[in-house]
Amino acid sequence: MSLSSQKSKANGAPMNGSSEKWVYSFAAGASDGSAEMRNLLGGKGANLAEMSNMGLPVPPGFTITTDLCTYYYANSETYPDALDGQVEAALKAIEADVGAVFGDTDNPLLVSVRSGARASMPGMMDTVLNLGLNDVTVAGLAERSGDARFAFDSYRRFIQMYSDVVLGVDHYMFEEVLEQHKLDNGLILDTDLSADDWRSIVAQYKAIVERELNMPFPQDPREQLWGAIGAVFGSWINQRAVTYRRLQNIPAEWGTAVNVQAMVFGNMGDDCATGVAFTRDPSTGENIFYGEYLVNAQGEDVVAGIRTPQHLTIAGKERNGSDLPAMEEVMPDVFKQLAGVRETLEAHYKDMQDIEFTVQSNKLYILQTRSGKRTAAAAVRIAVEMVADGLISQPDAILRVEPGQLDQLLHPRLDPDAARNVLSKGLPASPGAASGQIVLSADLAEDLARKGEDVILVRIETSPEDINGMHAAQGILTTRGGMTSHAAVVARGMGRPCVAGAGEINVDYDKGQVRVGDRTLAAGDQITIDGATGEIIDGKVPTIEPDLSDDFAKLMEWADGIRRLKVRTNAETPVDARTARDFGAEGIGLCRTEHMFFDPERIVAVRRMILAEDVTGRRAALDELLPYQRQDFVELFTIMSGLPVTIRLLDPPLHEFLPKSDEEIREVARAAGSDLAMMQDRAVQLYESNPMLGHRGCRLGITYPEIYEIQARAIFEAAVLVAKDSDETVLPEIMIPLAATRKEIDILKERIDQVAEAVFSESGSRVAYQVGTMIELPRAALRAGEIAESAEFFSFGTNDLTQTTFGISRDDASNFLNDYAHQGIIDVDPFVSIDVDGVGELVSIAAERGRATRADIKLGICGEHGGDPASVKFCDRSGLDYVSCSPYRVPIARLAAAQASVEADG
Amino acid sequence: MSLSSQKSKANGAPMNGSSEKWVYSFAAGASDGSAEMRNLLGGKGANLAEMSNMGLPVPPGFTITTDLCTYYYANSETYPDALDGQVEAALKAIEADVGAVFGDTDNPLLVSVRSGARASMPGMMDTVLNLGLNDVTVAGLAERSGDARFAFDSYRRFIQMYSDVVLGVDHYMFEEVLEQHKLDNGLILDTDLSADDWRSIVAQYKAIVERELNMPFPQDPREQLWGAIGAVFGSWINQRAVTYRRLQNIPAEWGTAVNVQAMVFGNMGDDCATGVAFTRDPSTGENIFYGEYLVNAQGEDVVAGIRTPQHLTIAGKERNGSDLPAMEEVMPDVFKQLAGVRETLEAHYKDMQDIEFTVQSNKLYILQTRSGKRTAAAAVRIAVEMVADGLISQPDAILRVEPGQLDQLLHPRLDPDAARNVLSKGLPASPGAASGQIVLSADLAEDLARKGEDVILVRIETSPEDINGMHAAQGILTTRGGMTSHAAVVARGMGRPCVAGAGEINVDYDKGQVRVGDRTLAAGDQITIDGATGEIIDGKVPTIEPDLSDDFAKLMEWADGIRRLKVRTNAETPVDARTARDFGAEGIGLCRTEHMFFDPERIVAVRRMILAEDVTGRRAALDELLPYQRQDFVELFTIMSGLPVTIRLLDPPLHEFLPKSDEEIREVARAAGSDLAMMQDRAVQLYESNPMLGHRGCRLGITYPEIYEIQARAIFEAAVLVAKDSDETVLPEIMIPLAATRKEIDILKERIDQVAEAVFSESGSRVAYQVGTMIELPRAALRAGEIAESAEFFSFGTNDLTQTTFGISRDDASNFLNDYAHQGIIDVDPFVSIDVDGVGELVSIAAERGRATRADIKLGICGEHGGDPASVKFCDRSGLDYVSCSPYRVPIARLAAAQASVEADG
Repeated sequence: MSLSSQKSKANGAPMNGSSEKWVYSFAAGASDGSAEMRNLLGGKGANLAEMSNMGLPVPPGFTITTDLCTYYYANSETYPDALDGQVEAALKAIEADVGAVFGDTDNPLLVSVRSGARASMPGMMDTVLNLGLNDVTVAGLAERSGDARFAFDSYRRFIQMYSDVVLGVDHYMFEEVLEQHKLDNGLILDTDLSADDWRSIVAQYKAIVERELNMPFPQDPREQLWGAIGAVFGSWINQRAVTYRRLQNIPAEWGTAVNVQAMVFGNMGDDCATGVAFTRDPSTGENIFYGEYLVNAQGEDVVAGIRTPQHLTIAGKERNGSDLPAMEEVMPDVFKQLAGVRETLEAHYKDMQDIEFTVQSNKLYILQTRSGKRTAAAAVRIAVEMVADGLISQPDAILRVEPGQLDQLLHPRLDPDAARNVLSKGLPASPGAASGQIVLSADLAEDLARKGEDVILVRIETSPEDINGMHAAQGILTTRGGMTSHAAVVARGMGRPCVAGAGEINVDYDKGQVRVGDRTLAAGDQITIDGATGEIIDGKVPTIEPDLSDDFAKLMEWADGIRRLKVRTNAETPVDARTARDFGAEGIGLCRTEHMFFDPERIVAVRRMILAEDVTGRRAALDELLPYQRQDFVELFTIMSGLPVTIRLLDPPLHEFLPKSDEEIREVARAAGSDLAMMQDRAVQLYESNPMLGHRGCRLGITYPEIYEIQARAIFEAAVLVAKDSDETVLPEIMIPLAATRKEIDILKERIDQVAEAVFSESGSRVAYQVGTMIELPRAALRAGEIAESAEFFSFGTNDLTQTTFGISRDDASNFLNDYAHQGIIDVDPFVSIDVDGVGELVSIAAERGRATRADIKLGICGEHGGDPASVKFCDRSGLDYVSCSPYRVPIARLAAAQASVEADG
Repeated sequence: MSLSSQKSKANGAPMNGSSEKWVYSFAAGASDGSAEMRNLLGGKGANLAEMSNMGLPVPPGFTITTDLCTYYYANSETYPDALDGQVEAALKAIEADVGAVFGDTDNPLLVSVRSGARASMPGMMDTVLNLGLNDVTVAGLAERSGDARFAFDSYRRFIQMYSDVVLGVDHYMFEEVLEQHKLDNGLILDTDLSADDWRSIVAQYKAIVERELNMPFPQDPREQLWGAIGAVFGSWINQRAVTYRRLQNIPAEWGTAVNVQAMVFGNMGDDCATGVAFTRDPSTGENIFYGEYLVNAQGEDVVAGIRTPQHLTIAGKERNGSDLPAMEEVMPDVFKQLAGVRETLEAHYKDMQDIEFTVQSNKLYILQTRSGKRTAAAAVRIAVEMVADGLISQPDAILRVEPGQLDQLLHPRLDPDAARNVLSKGLPASPGAASGQIVLSADLAEDLARKGEDVILVRIETSPEDINGMHAAQGILTTRGGMTSHAAVVARGMGRPCVAGAGEINVDYDKGQVRVGDRTLAAGDQITIDGATGEIIDGKVPTIEPDLSDDFAKLMEWADGIRRLKVRTNAETPVDARTARDFGAEGIGLCRTEHMFFDPERIVAVRRMILAEDVTGRRAALDELLPYQRQDFVELFTIMSGLPVTIRLLDPPLHEFLPKSDEEIREVARAAGSDLAMMQDRAVQLYESNPMLGHRGCRLGITYPEIYEIQARAIFEAAVLVAKDSDETVLPEIMIPLAATRKEIDILKERIDQVAEAVFSESGSRVAYQVGTMIELPRAALRAGEIAESAEFFSFGTNDLTQTTFGISRDDASNFLNDYAHQGIIDVDPFVSIDVDGVGELVSIAAERGRATRADIKLGICGEHGGDPASVKFCDRSGLDYVSCSPYRVPIARLAAAQASVEADG
């Protein structure tokens, strides 16, 4: 049944849902579904079914499938006829299990309604608790629980949540009523309120709904239930969900399931509790039981981060210097049972689990389990340790670490020897360190980041509306909430450093100020946060290179053992080349020679070259540059000895080297001893309307042969020098940029070969070398068959290839690319992750045609995509030989390449 | 044998030439070759063979094949071993036929050596006459001819020509000697010189060679012969030839043949002559015998245009008001024989022939025949009349007219009612009229033309070195030479108006002046030339539309009957639309709505729209534009009633509409009532580094939906209005520019459909319409399959597609495209004629994928290529439905489309 329903989904939503099974029940010990049915039941539903099958104490319930969501949107937001009957039957099963009846006056069954998509989307979907309460059943609940205060508190929570999520009444109206009631009655905490207080508030809440919507708050539990189910499906297309899916690359077609489950209460007294547990430490990966709980609280209180939660274990409490008692102390029996669940679930799922539980009257209920989000360090450690424990295989371990996450491990951390003016301290919620200006709103953070500024997003607490800003910020600081608060969870997932719950800090949004003690900082002031220690530091603090763990080394060793794709680096400075080699780069895939021209010592000669009126003048200036260029290559060849070094000849249009401001122009004219007017003339002459499509790349080599000749000479002279002094082979690969035709390569290769022969005969020794080309224009990709007759290797310049294939200039794209993302035209920025359908097809065409001509042609990629895991996997599928990326991305590419191999074998 | 040798050529040059036939003999009545062997023998050689076979009086000779040229360049400029023997045998055959011996002291055989490529390349290849003369044989020639003056004149001509062409000694040195000799001896004309004068000059010429080359002038006739053969092959790759081939799209691989032929002399006295004859008038196409000759002159004298030649016929003489006697009068018998040859050749070749002849001692020799170059008017008339005469079929006639040449007929001519301040008159050498500034050098003409200026190239006479400048000029004026001079022949071929031989005009290159009587014009002054009358007119003269002949109408009717491809026009003004419809356009293929925005009445509203801070402001400004846009479309729909009108929504980046200069910005700020600073801010905000790849095309429609909505509303309101008033169908096709994804079309099409429904419901009537897209990005071409799910038609925007596929901005390409052409990287400017291998493949891919999704999708092309004959033929081969081009190019496209059909059927 599940198979056929998945099949029908793949073929589009069925138009006639009468024979389909839309509802899957679960109850401790038995359920219709299983963990394998994640696509159909969503992650939460599948795991509830699985845990029920395992006999864990799961409150009974049922899951409405993701297929129903698809059906709903394919059929003008209507349900199939069969749904109603299936829901009724499933509800009956819960009633039978729990021994309560939905809507019953004396013994009412209450349920929660939650979304549950295939992929975990924390905080993104709406939840309704305590559903089934109304003016009549609340009395029944009060009676049966013997706690009228609890019953009316539950009812007011339900009205508020349901009104907000299902009916669209702003929650602040309810909060105002509550605040006013407290003020009027001299009450401070929610726990100070009595049953009568809550009863009065419930009446006012209902009045708000009636006023706002011109209709009473729905009293019929079935109306409530269908309203909530509709709201879950509706929330699948709300802006927050759409944004999250876009950022996480989740297709809208997946849909969400709806989980309806009997309520259990963590807030019925001090023998009740609710909490979140991780089977290992999600921050470090250490194999300890980790988590937080709150006594006498309802489910969402822990995650929302409003009350500061307590630790599960005594060890955890001590480690964090907390005064609050651990669950291990307060509820030792229940804790023991929970510890047993920890063992069972991890052994079963063979992965670190994130578990939600509730204790009702000393009875443990498990509400959810899922793979726990973790830091990169934790991911690495858990993967490696699980292999050591025999839980998973090496290839499994390789797949367990998200390559992009490694960024967290590889980036610099604060220099421990640097002075730190520590302003305050919060929880070390997500590792890494960052400096930036204080920004108090997510939107502004996004704007400033787009302008290239480093920002630290500072908020009292974060909510899903802040996701864009969190993504844009270098780091996140909150003054409320714990290690499992929204800010902490999301920041860890994104790899942003985060300090959470820094309670000494006072944020004043209106004044745009942040106060710590008697110190006041303004928005725009620089601060630094250290996600490893929780410190908040005044100003900018210098950073040092990261120390990589042994686990990391082991994982990378496994990755290297399994991957087919080689990983090189894009580097032109000795520092970058050395860093990359330390990170495991297997050569240089792209050395951009123009970067070497901007050195202050050389730029004058470069400008003289550009300003020269004829070839003699150009050659004279170039001759001055020759020793510098040669020395550049000597260093690179030495650092990379034994490995290939691909050097791209001059690529950018010459005007990029000219000064921009009038003052600068004057200065250069003086320094170069040239006429100001002539300088300006030349700048005008070199001006281009579309420099990206202008006189650049090999077009420079064709029109000014002397430029490439000097560069080739510098390369060959350096290669000969280094080869003489070294036992290792020097492997220069000369790369011609921006070719569109075979003839360009023919002409330039001939000249390069002539220079090589000249240098070899002058020096009396030879080195082997190759001449190849970038494939970065659609025409070059299409004509790759004939270009390969001349070129000995191809390196795909996917930045330019994306620009030309899409007709989008990277420099100008920000004007519309955001709109494109919001309107769902692009799933992911094509400059970040390769556009497989368009640019990718050109890469495949070129690879195929190039190989048809020259079977052993070396194929690589050297655009920024070389460090993007999805793009690396595409390169592996396309049969390229290597990727080349920035030094810090080398380990990421190595791991992504290994995953590609594992996935290809799987 | 010829077949196998052609086959070997197709497979590359043979490496071993021993068994190959390299030399083909011809002699009146019998020859090895024929007209069919043009590829192997070149045009001249094949026709010499053919005429020999026909029994025409052709001096005997032989042709060395084009295969030999290919062999020569494939084998490091060496000949196969077998060649020498074959040449010797062929030489023997000539000796036997003529009764003279090559190198013989008493009775020396003299030969001419000429190039002969497959395609006629007038004036581009070098020729050597009188070869075989040396210090000894010249005496023999003097003796046998009884004319020592003739013999030494011939010898000095030979030395000068051979030294220039074969030995590389500059010809001016020889001219100086001759001038000096005349001055010293008080002689004026060459004919004043005696045998002794020539003898003395020969001695001086030989001394020049010895001085310059440090070796004596070669005396061995066989050394001379091989030197000349090598020079012919060498000239195949000289700059002039390369340039000509580039301009005419002739592949370098074709190679040239060498023709060695017994000399006949038109300069042995007054019973000798030489001339050029056309079987019909090459200017008008009239079926009259047309040509010029010179008494007592050698071959090249007529073509070189140094002496003013006389007419062949009495009618010709009278028609041109010449005083000089016609050949018909002077040599009636020979003329009669020549007239017979005219009949024979035209009947045989079934095309107008251009014949070179020489009369030696009253005996007629035919030295060459070839298809005559002709004006467009002549081409049309000849083709149509030859069909009427039953000589050729209608499809033949269609192939006989070069579509690009029609330009000459379609462009305006001088308004006959306009005042003309006629400065002087020359020969009406090539029809059409042009105005422009006087430019005295070809290089400057090219430079100025590149900057968009109209120039008239004014020269005493032109030479092949001037071809670039002639191509760049609007018109050509020479002060020397006749209707068959270099200037005249080349100008007709290029379709440039030309007035030749305007002897009253004096050109002073040094002073940069042109003098006519007492009037002095400076370079830079405006003049007008009328190629139809030969008038040279002061200043600029207004022009009127061309009158098209009945022959033209008939030919176009045949073309329309045979072509498959439809022809539309690119037009946005009523004038253009009407012109195009008159020229036979079958609808509008591209209406660029932005052109309508530049109208002074509207530009302020456009700028207000751009400057608006929000959608409300933008919408207000757009509402103002709506009535204008609607009226635009009312006019276009009315003019094109019954035919489809494709309207492209706004395409260029918004900053194109903003004023550029500070003063203009201030003015607009005032007019628009907006703040200057804000205006400048907005201009900065809209600035793009690469606008071609920027925020333009449908990206505007995505980010500013209201712009496309207003445009759609204008279109639908206009369509409804016109449909109400007309019996004809209104067929609007709305075209979305610059799409890269299907989703863009989905979103915009939905909005357009909504606007349509709104307008239809407001007006109570409906019109049928289509929504389609431009395919102008490589990604769109690749994703055409899915784009066709939404788009109802594709129009290939090959301008942009060329820019992105090649990565070349049209605005910036001139910086390197010339170098690219000179270095043979591109054969033809890809913006002029579609790059079939690159851009063409994308067009084919898109056509195929689009049709696979939507079998009846309409496919067209609307880039500038739509009016380029080669590109039109490519579109036909690719199965497109229509091409769209500028109004004046419509007939060209119709004819090219018909040729494509004929060629496809053939």
